[in-house]
Amino acid sequence: MVTFLSGGTGTPKLLDGAAAAFSPEETTVVVNTGDDIEIGGLLVSPDIDTLLFQGGGILDRETWWGIEGDTQRTNSALSDIASAAGLPEGPQYLPDDRQTEGRTLANWRRFSGVAEFMTIGDRDRAVHITRTSLIDEGKTLSEATERLADAFGLTIDLLPMSDDPVASLVHTDEGVMHFQEYWVARRGDPAVDTVEFRGSSKAEPAPGVLEALEDTVVIGPSNPVTSIGPMLALPGVADALAQTTVVAVSPFLGDDAFSGPAGDLMEAVNAEPSTEGLATAYPFADAFVVDDGDDADFDRPTVRTDIAIDSSEDAARVIRAIDDAIEHGR
Amino acid sequence: MVTFLSGGTGTPKLLDGAAAAFSPEETTVVVNTGDDIEIGGLLVSPDIDTLLFQGGGILDRETWWGIEGDTQRTNSALSDIASAAGLPEGPQYLPDDRQTEGRTLANWRRFSGVAEFMTIGDRDRAVHITRTSLIDEGKTLSEATERLADAFGLTIDLLPMSDDPVASLVHTDEGVMHFQEYWVARRGDPAVDTVEFRGSSKAEPAPGVLEALEDTVVIGPSNPVTSIGPMLALPGVADALAQTTVVAVSPFLGDDAFSGPAGDLMEAVNAEPSTEGLATAYPFADAFVVDDGDDADFDRPTVRTDIAIDSSEDAARVIRAIDDAIEHGR
Repeated sequence: MVTFLSGGTGTPKLLDGAAAAFSPEETTVVVNTGDDIEIGGLLVSPDIDTLLFQGGGILDRETWWGIEGDTQRTNSALSDIASAAGLPEGPQYLPDDRQTEGRTLANWRRFSGVAEFMTIGDRDRAVHITRTSLIDEGKTLSEATERLADAFGLTIDLLPMSDDPVASLVHTDEGVMHFQEYWVARRGDPAVDTVEFRGSSKAEPAPGVLEALEDTVVIGPSNPVTSIGPMLALPGVADALAQTTVVAVSPFLGDDAFSGPAGDLMEAVNAEPSTEGLATAYPFADAFVVDDGDDADFDRPTVRTDIAIDSSEDAARVIRAIDDAIEHGR
Repeated sequence: MVTFLSGGTGTPKLLDGAAAAFSPEETTVVVNTGDDIEIGGLLVSPDIDTLLFQGGGILDRETWWGIEGDTQRTNSALSDIASAAGLPEGPQYLPDDRQTEGRTLANWRRFSGVAEFMTIGDRDRAVHITRTSLIDEGKTLSEATERLADAFGLTIDLLPMSDDPVASLVHTDEGVMHFQEYWVARRGDPAVDTVEFRGSSKAEPAPGVLEALEDTVVIGPSNPVTSIGPMLALPGVADALAQTTVVAVSPFLGDDAFSGPAGDLMEAVNAEPSTEGLATAYPFADAFVVDDGDDADFDRPTVRTDIAIDSSEDAARVIRAIDDAIEHGR
């Protein structure tokens, strides 16, 4: 049994090769939900969606989000209408008094759907509608995710990190903004001061998460701050990780992050924006997998390989290195 | 200045010929919102939408709802997901405790979006998202409608009957159901006992509605019960109509309704399911326009013409009859 902690790009890429060492039936993936937002009344869970679409064989592998070949008729029409009506475009938070009413899941992360600043495909949207309506019917995010995972034929066990709202907010020199505004709408431009996981101290890990952390845990090459950080901020998670074998894969090649804003964000949490920073970000890690061209020095066991993942063969190579590191880390 | 009261099919068809007697700039249309529902988090206003799409020149004129040539990618995907996940299809009301929370507009008419029982097109959906988000931003339905009417380039003044929730509920031998379940999902099959406009006694006419009813009023050939009935149930509307000139166009050719379930519904409110019943339904009407093949007898002025509307020429003919009837009714 193995449990992966995943964000939306690095770890999903790694999971393409997971079968090289781990049976899908014995694999659990705990997924970040700090990126989740409600937009136009729909709960969008970008990292869960990537894993659903990957597991269902319909992921757009150019972008690592959305459904391959999906149309964007509704999203385009939203821009057209906003433009014709003279309505503003870009992210628009709902008023404070509407952030939390109705669905507690919407806490601090509710956006207007006017001009829809995220590109949501038409089939993609059906997933968000189904998820949101299942929650409105009284189910939890975990339960909704389980139904969707069934629908997409997933063989791994997919768990959201929490059924409670956690919002990854980025404090920048241009103000506080949700991670999705910072990354999708502003392309990571504003200078980051700190990152806050609002709601995390009151949120509970979702059913099954703490149990899954009793198995060997692999932290994939995801952004340590905004992909893995929200999980670590949940009550009980860091303690659970301290008590099991944890292997972390570097999301850096030297000072360069493979994807996303990991570098800038590491600095914001006072960690080195490079492989060295992993030791700070993951004090509970028992071993690391780093690139064989990386000269980072650790006081913990390290397995080196080419960690660039551009194919399932690459992913399988890194998975085998993880399997070695698990042996070293025990 | 003239004000039309409209549902979603008969009166919009009539409005195609309105320019034969009335300038669009001097025309107000007050629209039924008793059919409105919230589905999958979106406020859908079917009758308003028909008038928006008609005014914008994009209405599907085969069905008189939706946008011509629209795709239904999201709607189809919702069925596919529900089927793959083993989720139920058909209308599914949200639980009682979720009917009113969050948005007061959602009162008593909230459906799950799972398997989406109404066919909502992809561009059509963008209208619902924009409307719902404008309301979530703090605007009223009237304000949202005004923005959408601007976006679609409408020249008439389009007013929802109320900014408050009114739900047309049909009490049948198979239980109480929203009009949309009765008509869209069940094709008008269940035997109707009574019709209730839940919320109407507490709802206010939308800004501008009572003022618009000071002008000459035309009640188009819409369903007297579920299209016009919700308006008449609003405080002040019947009184306002009693004080102005009102001309009503029959939605019946003898005992046959032109469209929709008008016949069955008239019986449910103890009115004759034919032109004669109009006198009962519209006691404030000063004159009627009925078909020249109709032998209904009225104690009020009547103008007869061929009232079947299959083209804008037909509509213009009926509009000219209305103009005559206004003269007779004064």
